[in-house]
Amino acid sequence: MADILVVGSLAYDSIETPSGKVDRALGGSANYFALASSLYTGVRVVGVVGDDYEAKDLELLTSRNVDTTGMTVQKGKTFHWSGYYQGDLNEAVTRSTELNVFEHFNPNLPQNYRDSQFVFLANISPDLQLKVLEQVTKPLFVGMDTMNFWIDSKLNDLKAVLKKVDVVLINEGEAMSLTGAHNGIAAAAKLCEMGPKALVIKRGEYGFVLYTQADGFFILPAFPLPEVIDPTGAGDTFAGGFFGYLASLNRAPVAQDLREACVKGTILASFTIQDFSVRSLAKVTPRDIETRLAAYRKVISWH
Amino acid sequence: MADILVVGSLAYDSIETPSGKVDRALGGSANYFALASSLYTGVRVVGVVGDDYEAKDLELLTSRNVDTTGMTVQKGKTFHWSGYYQGDLNEAVTRSTELNVFEHFNPNLPQNYRDSQFVFLANISPDLQLKVLEQVTKPLFVGMDTMNFWIDSKLNDLKAVLKKVDVVLINEGEAMSLTGAHNGIAAAAKLCEMGPKALVIKRGEYGFVLYTQADGFFILPAFPLPEVIDPTGAGDTFAGGFFGYLASLNRAPVAQDLREACVKGTILASFTIQDFSVRSLAKVTPRDIETRLAAYRKVISWH
Repeated sequence: MADILVVGSLAYDSIETPSGKVDRALGGSANYFALASSLYTGVRVVGVVGDDYEAKDLELLTSRNVDTTGMTVQKGKTFHWSGYYQGDLNEAVTRSTELNVFEHFNPNLPQNYRDSQFVFLANISPDLQLKVLEQVTKPLFVGMDTMNFWIDSKLNDLKAVLKKVDVVLINEGEAMSLTGAHNGIAAAAKLCEMGPKALVIKRGEYGFVLYTQADGFFILPAFPLPEVIDPTGAGDTFAGGFFGYLASLNRAPVAQDLREACVKGTILASFTIQDFSVRSLAKVTPRDIETRLAAYRKVISWH
Repeated sequence: MADILVVGSLAYDSIETPSGKVDRALGGSANYFALASSLYTGVRVVGVVGDDYEAKDLELLTSRNVDTTGMTVQKGKTFHWSGYYQGDLNEAVTRSTELNVFEHFNPNLPQNYRDSQFVFLANISPDLQLKVLEQVTKPLFVGMDTMNFWIDSKLNDLKAVLKKVDVVLINEGEAMSLTGAHNGIAAAAKLCEMGPKALVIKRGEYGFVLYTQADGFFILPAFPLPEVIDPTGAGDTFAGGFFGYLASLNRAPVAQDLREACVKGTILASFTIQDFSVRSLAKVTPRDIETRLAAYRKVISWH
C-alpha cells in the first residue's frame, strides 16, 4: 500500500446542533481525513497549529500511525471555527472564523513526503494547493476539494488546480456554483470538462454521485440514520475513506476501484455524523465498517 | 393480473419552467397514474372533468385500455392548475388553482369497480379517500398519497385513512411535516407507526426511500438526467409504475415485490420529467423501459 499525503486544516470547532454543543473540539479537514484514511493506509499530514494545540490531539493521529512530521506548531492560536446547524442539519451557519496561525499557512513538504503517490488537497486556498503540487515529484493520483469562498475569490487559481488533479470531491451546491449547472448531474459532466478525469459530488444525506467520462455515473444513497448528531467533517471523512481505500490498492485506480472507494467513504462518513467532532470516527474499527457495509448492502440491494 | 382502481384529479395544467411553457396541457394525478400503471395492468379511473375536457384526452386513456366508465363529465370547467418552477426545479410555485368541477367531487364507484383488489387513493381530500374505501368490497393492497394542505387542514381524517392503507407514497418534506421528524429516515419509521405497513418517501431528483418494519430500508437514487424539462407528475407517475407492477403480479406483495416496484416507479418517473405534461410518458414503450432499466442497473451497480 502507498502512503497518502494530505494538506488541509487542523482546527478547533465550536459547534451547536439540535442535539447539543461542543466547545473547541478537534476538527479541521486534515484531521477528519487522516483519521478515516489511516484505517486503510499510511498517511502523511501537512498543516499548521498554534501553541494551544493539545498533545492528546496530536497523539490521536500518531496512535493511528499517521506521520505528523509535516505538522508545524507556530506561536499563536489554532484555527478556530464556530457555527451551528438547525432543523435538517443540511447547512452550517458560521458564527465566527478565526484563522489565527492558519492565516499565513504556507505548506512546505518535508523531504520524505515529496515522493507521495496519493495526494489529497483538502479545502484550502487554490494557490496553496498549487504550491503543494509543485513540491510533489511523482504523484500517481491527486484529489482535491474546494468551496464557494474560493470559487468566488480565486477562480483562476482554482481552474489551474482543476487541470492538475485526477479527482474532485465537492459538495453538490458548490459543483453547481462552479459550473452554472442547475443540478448535480449536469454539473458532473461540465466539471469533468474542466480537467479532472473523475468527479465525486457529495450530496450529504442523499449520498454521492461518481462520474467519469469512461464509466459514466455511479450513484448511491447515504447510509440511513434516523438521528444525526453533528454533520461536521462528513465530507472530509468521505474523502479520507475514499483515498485511503484507493491508496491501499497501490495502483492507478480503475473504474471499479473508484466505485468501491465511494462506498467506503459513505460508510465512514456515516460514523462521523453520529457524534460531535471526531468522537465517533476515532473509535471506528474495521469490524464496525464490515458490519455497516453488510447493512448498507441490504439497503441498496435490488436483486 | 389484477385491475387497479385509482381515484384522483383529472386536470389541465398551465406550467412554466426554465425550458419553456405549456398552456392548459393534460395533467392531474389520475392521468399520470393511469398512463404509467396501464403499461403493466388494467386500470379503472374515478374522477370528474368539465364539459371542456377534450375527446382526445379521454381517448388517450381508452387507447391504453384504461377503463374510464368511472369518469364523470359535469357542466362547468375542468380543474385547472397554473404554476411555475425555477432554478433547480425542486418546488412548484402555484399561480392559481381553479378547482371548478373538482370542488364538489364526490367519488361514486361504478358497480363493476367495487371488487378492485389494488386501490390507489391519489392526493385528494382524506374524507373522500375514506369514502372510496367504504365502497371497495375486498381490497388486497391499498395505497395513498397526500400533501401539506390536508396535513394542515384535515389531519384527523388523514390519520383515519393512514390506519386503513397498506402503503403511503409521500414527498419527503410532507413526511417530515406529518411526523415532525427532521429527516426522511426518521419520518419513515414514525409514519409506519401511524398505520401503513410500508412507506415510500419520494425524494425527487434524489430518488426514493422504501421502508417496511419487516424488511427495513431500501434506498436508491433517481435515474440521472442532465436536463429536466418539467417535474410535474413525476410522483404520480412513480405511484403508477409502482402499483401497476404490483397489480401485474396478482398477489399480496412481498418485500422483494415492493423493491422491484420502486425501481419501476423510478424509471417511469424519469420519462415523465423529460417533457411537459404527459407528452413523454404517453409515448413510453416496454422496450424504452427495458433499455433504461439496464442503464439504471449500471448506475447503481456496486459489485
